[in-house]
Amino acid sequence: MTSEHRPPDAPPARRGRGRRPAEEVRSDVLETVGHLLLTEGSADLTFERVARLAGVSKTTLYKWWPSKGALALDGYFHAVEEPLAFADTGDIRADLTSQLRAWSRIMTRTPGGKVLTELIGQSQTDADLASAYRSLYSSERRRLAGERLARAQQVGQIRPDVDVRVVIDQLWGAAYHRMLIPDEPVTDDFITALVTNVLDGVGGD
Amino acid sequence: MTSEHRPPDAPPARRGRGRRPAEEVRSDVLETVGHLLLTEGSADLTFERVARLAGVSKTTLYKWWPSKGALALDGYFHAVEEPLAFADTGDIRADLTSQLRAWSRIMTRTPGGKVLTELIGQSQTDADLASAYRSLYSSERRRLAGERLARAQQVGQIRPDVDVRVVIDQLWGAAYHRMLIPDEPVTDDFITALVTNVLDGVGGD
Repeated sequence: MTSEHRPPDAPPARRGRGRRPAEEVRSDVLETVGHLLLTEGSADLTFERVARLAGVSKTTLYKWWPSKGALALDGYFHAVEEPLAFADTGDIRADLTSQLRAWSRIMTRTPGGKVLTELIGQSQTDADLASAYRSLYSSERRRLAGERLARAQQVGQIRPDVDVRVVIDQLWGAAYHRMLIPDEPVTDDFITALVTNVLDGVGGD
Repeated sequence: MTSEHRPPDAPPARRGRGRRPAEEVRSDVLETVGHLLLTEGSADLTFERVARLAGVSKTTLYKWWPSKGALALDGYFHAVEEPLAFADTGDIRADLTSQLRAWSRIMTRTPGGKVLTELIGQSQTDADLASAYRSLYSSERRRLAGERLARAQQVGQIRPDVDVRVVIDQLWGAAYHRMLIPDEPVTDDFITALVTNVLDGVGGD
């Protein structure tokens, strides 16, 4: 489905008659939701509208996603999977910098930043959403980051004794901290300093 | 006022007749609020109850703190000022480790962790609270951390070209990240790894 080439609220093009395979329907829904979240944010994301846009019944949507939060998180994950992919050019410093810059662009220049920080916010008092946040978004993002860091460790670009799970918090965690409590801004200089500090250390002498 | 030695809901001991100086009243209120937050959390924190416990009128409370969030943040800041003070023993590694362990104890073993993460959560959709969070809590905590890091930089324990504001996000920001999105736990091992990684760097070769 190429939602970019259709007017935002037009129904999807039908491909022949009969039932579409479930995986195709599912993928259409996720693309619709992800596109809405990165272009508009979550204010007007409703099961009603997503059902109409993706050409599925609300019953089907509720069967797969029990809440608006779960639907948003799954759609968001799919929307950022490509732009936030972890490249492996063989240079961990360059790869972390470009990934974090892509992250920073989405978080600060699209409605995606507000979508995520509000979901994190709401998950502080909503245990179901907190659990959905981890299972549908953050734990998989951590796994992907961890894989890239582990490969850097295998080729000697990260010390063998380092727990890469901690490095994830020192990079993306530090950056989320600035999004959630914006005493200081998320800028390209910040991203560069972050990667430099993590790899080279800030200790003197 | 030694609220620890009184039953939790007893009114404060009166010290003679007449008006107490405003600063003394203010400090009594903050101590009352901070004590409640670290022992009970924020569920039963009301202006009514704080007024009764600290022996002040609700009008006075509202004059100084326009919202429950502002009252909680100011009280919380005062409650943790001493336990989270930045010691300077001349050894930045030891001082960061002990401060972050104290932080971790308060966040994971008292109701204080939930108080803060819920305030951060709510501040994602409440601009007044977000502003109060920064002005009454986080920006001053950052300032105190920055002072200690700057002294370490002056004595050569942190490289001169490092922006210590970024280091703050890499230490406390990384730790808050684990509190807010608990894919991984905040443990003493995590704190040790955090400080080691930040000072020594994780890069190989």
